[in-house]
Amino acid sequence: MASRKVHFPLILVNLKTYKEATGDRAIKLASLAEEVFKDTGACIAVAPQTVDLHRVVEATSIPVFSQHVDPVGYGKYTGHVLPEAIAEAGCAGTIISHSERKLELETIEATVGRAREAGLLQVVCVDKVDRGQAVAPLKPDVIAIEPPELIGTGIPVSKARPEVVSGAVEAVHSINSDIKVLCGAGITSGEDVNAAMKLGAEGVLVASGVVKAADPYEVLLELAGAVRT
Amino acid sequence: MASRKVHFPLILVNLKTYKEATGDRAIKLASLAEEVFKDTGACIAVAPQTVDLHRVVEATSIPVFSQHVDPVGYGKYTGHVLPEAIAEAGCAGTIISHSERKLELETIEATVGRAREAGLLQVVCVDKVDRGQAVAPLKPDVIAIEPPELIGTGIPVSKARPEVVSGAVEAVHSINSDIKVLCGAGITSGEDVNAAMKLGAEGVLVASGVVKAADPYEVLLELAGAVRT
Amino acid sequence: MASRKVHFPLILVNLKTYKEATGDRAIKLASLAEEVFKDTGACIAVAPQTVDLHRVVEATSIPVFSQHVDPVGYGKYTGHVLPEAIAEAGCAGTIISHSERKLELETIEATVGRAREAGLLQVVCVDKVDRGQAVAPLKPDVIAIEPPELIGTGIPVSKARPEVVSGAVEAVHSINSDIKVLCGAGITSGEDVNAAMKLGAEGVLVASGVVKAADPYEVLLELAGAVRT
Amino acid sequence: MASRKVHFPLILVNLKTYKEATGDRAIKLASLAEEVFKDTGACIAVAPQTVDLHRVVEATSIPVFSQHVDPVGYGKYTGHVLPEAIAEAGCAGTIISHSERKLELETIEATVGRAREAGLLQVVCVDKVDRGQAVAPLKPDVIAIEPPELIGTGIPVSKARPEVVSGAVEAVHSINSDIKVLCGAGITSGEDVNAAMKLGAEGVLVASGVVKAADPYEVLLELAGAVRT
Repeated sequence: MASRKVHFPLILVNLKTYKEATGDRAIKLASLAEEVFKDTGACIAVAPQTVDLHRVVEATSIPVFSQHVDPVGYGKYTGHVLPEAIAEAGCAGTIISHSERKLELETIEATVGRAREAGLLQVVCVDKVDRGQAVAPLKPDVIAIEPPELIGTGIPVSKARPEVVSGAVEAVHSINSDIKVLCGAGITSGEDVNAAMKLGAEGVLVASGVVKAADPYEVLLELAGAVRT
Repeated sequence: MASRKVHFPLILVNLKTYKEATGDRAIKLASLAEEVFKDTGACIAVAPQTVDLHRVVEATSIPVFSQHVDPVGYGKYTGHVLPEAIAEAGCAGTIISHSERKLELETIEATVGRAREAGLLQVVCVDKVDRGQAVAPLKPDVIAIEPPELIGTGIPVSKARPEVVSGAVEAVHSINSDIKVLCGAGITSGEDVNAAMKLGAEGVLVASGVVKAADPYEVLLELAGAVRT
Repeated sequence: MASRKVHFPLILVNLKTYKEATGDRAIKLASLAEEVFKDTGACIAVAPQTVDLHRVVEATSIPVFSQHVDPVGYGKYTGHVLPEAIAEAGCAGTIISHSERKLELETIEATVGRAREAGLLQVVCVDKVDRGQAVAPLKPDVIAIEPPELIGTGIPVSKARPEVVSGAVEAVHSINSDIKVLCGAGITSGEDVNAAMKLGAEGVLVASGVVKAADPYEVLLELAGAVRT
Repeated sequence: MASRKVHFPLILVNLKTYKEATGDRAIKLASLAEEVFKDTGACIAVAPQTVDLHRVVEATSIPVFSQHVDPVGYGKYTGHVLPEAIAEAGCAGTIISHSERKLELETIEATVGRAREAGLLQVVCVDKVDRGQAVAPLKPDVIAIEPPELIGTGIPVSKARPEVVSGAVEAVHSINSDIKVLCGAGITSGEDVNAAMKLGAEGVLVASGVVKAADPYEVLLELAGAVRT
């Protein structure tokens, strides 16, 4: 079963540098996500730290994303994250310019290009509608809208600021209707996911809502149920 | 045999993002280094890309270094390289502020501190004697002096600009005599290593001279012979 | 006569840090621009270095622009260019994010806001059509499109790459039709200005074409003639 | 009388972007400083915003400093502060890398070099002893030690953290005894100045203690009295 392939709606779980999701615990969490995928068919991808990517790919069959790549190629680039190396490790895609690892627009453009050449799906994060408009001409596969003030709060963007989600969807699609829009920040429940999808999002970007949950499997199951509705 | 432990003189092989040293080829190169260690007892460490670190640690028993870490802790640091995750993957140390991934002095200070807390040996690169003086008060374990204009040229710093190596050794030791000094840039032969050690260096930082050699095993064997003299 | 007021079409002369336009020579050049204004009625503004702004305002009656301002307010901002101080010195506006002093999109947004509050006309430079789309939602008064590879070449953007000028005009106006579009890079003759205006630009941004001309007065006179056509 | 020349001990008054010291009020404050110089013979210099430099030079006969210069030369450097233009405006020197306009060590080195070539006295700010050690090899004329956490507090570094001042003096002089050391942060009284000079400082860097004083003339008179003791 080609479960490694990304399909939409997508639940993308960002493991950040959370202690609960570093090293062996990254594998454990990814395995739970894989179980939920097997139970529901919903597409769940995980984005572990770079050092854990290979092990998570080895241990599971779900799509794995990098949290960041650099716009470099093979050669003299000590300390950079090479898109080709991420692809060779078996990853399906990469997050680009998360609000905790923000890139300038020029750098986003170069990174989207390099990730595309390496065969990685590109998920560019933006913090507001205007930035969605700025990034859409660069034609990434996915734009994720995440108001940073809601990240990690449990207050879902899809309910607290629905106009940001629908505004981003509209602004992005008016420039390029092929780009998928995800929404993130504060997503913890199936209801939040449903709200997001009614606003035009084709999936969600989650982190602490899953990683720091008492029972991550249950949360993932609920989110998966919602995207399947 | 505790070969994973770093001892001096040290040969540190930086794999950069060279195609010849990405993914499976990183493992192959590290295995050659391990053979040379077994044959000679010389301490050879490798610094693969972050995504390859875990596999290289699994496949070999030599010390493995990261090419970069960020001065962050567990938590909300998407896209950063967490020192604790590097240590958990089995690494012995990390390069900091290589000329291809230069950090400001403030950031070097924070990174040395975080790497130390995570139990990683810190190798801070500097490009000239003045910078060695600037970094020494931060008390990293190792300072590597590498004039960037010689990197990748095959013109060895230890012969072309011996006063840079001896000047760095003297400047660093006048501030803190516990800090080891490595030298890098253009090192490709045993003769270059000998010259470096006569100038006070306790090892070398090499990259293309090994990675791009027709026979990396032979080059490593020659370098190892020189540090054992 | 309220010649200090900016009207369009506008010829904005950027003095950069050219030796021919520093200190007393900035005043001399601004005085020539003033003469041409008096002779033709065309709106010619000059953008001297910050240190020369006050003297140029004192010595002439044409609009004077800053080459840069910082998004700061009154207070503890050593070494920054305060928009209010620029306005108090009698300036009409400011260039923002020239390709030689490029700002991130976030910083452009903050700077446009601060300049507006201080009563300065905002001229944001962009290097390509996509960036015009990114900046237009920030609602600056003016967007100047300048492909950096043509700056200082004498090859006019309006003739070498007309689609960049018309594309920028269209992209910007589709988002906000109140924003004026200038074009720059390689402009040295009346013909170049005519070409620019036919493509929808409401003026030009010039630098070396005037500053380094054998006879700046003649060049300005020709440019002024063209905007008046 | 060659009052424009800097001599030590020096009282350097940084006007920042304080409202009380912008435009006409910069001139008023500089005139008070000039009066105190005439009354006491103490060397008092002021550092207004770049846009006010020329007017302050015209209106007074005391030494005037820039708050910042960029490491650029004549040419295509839109929006930068050219050292030669600052010198041509009649300034005696420049502050470099104030904690509110911090520069990387590489940039400090380039800026010190360019300022020296333009004939400007260079006052490099550092926030701790280690940084004094890092900057001293660059041979600026003056290093000012200012712990940023005390800036604007009225808690004088010379009394709250005397070891920082004496440590900086010692560290800097052990590398190059020609470099003068100033101390700043929290200085508001003659007593603070006396304490600083006993620790080896050859003057002080002040800002809010003077600019925001109810009676700046009185404060300057007291500071001047202390440096003359």
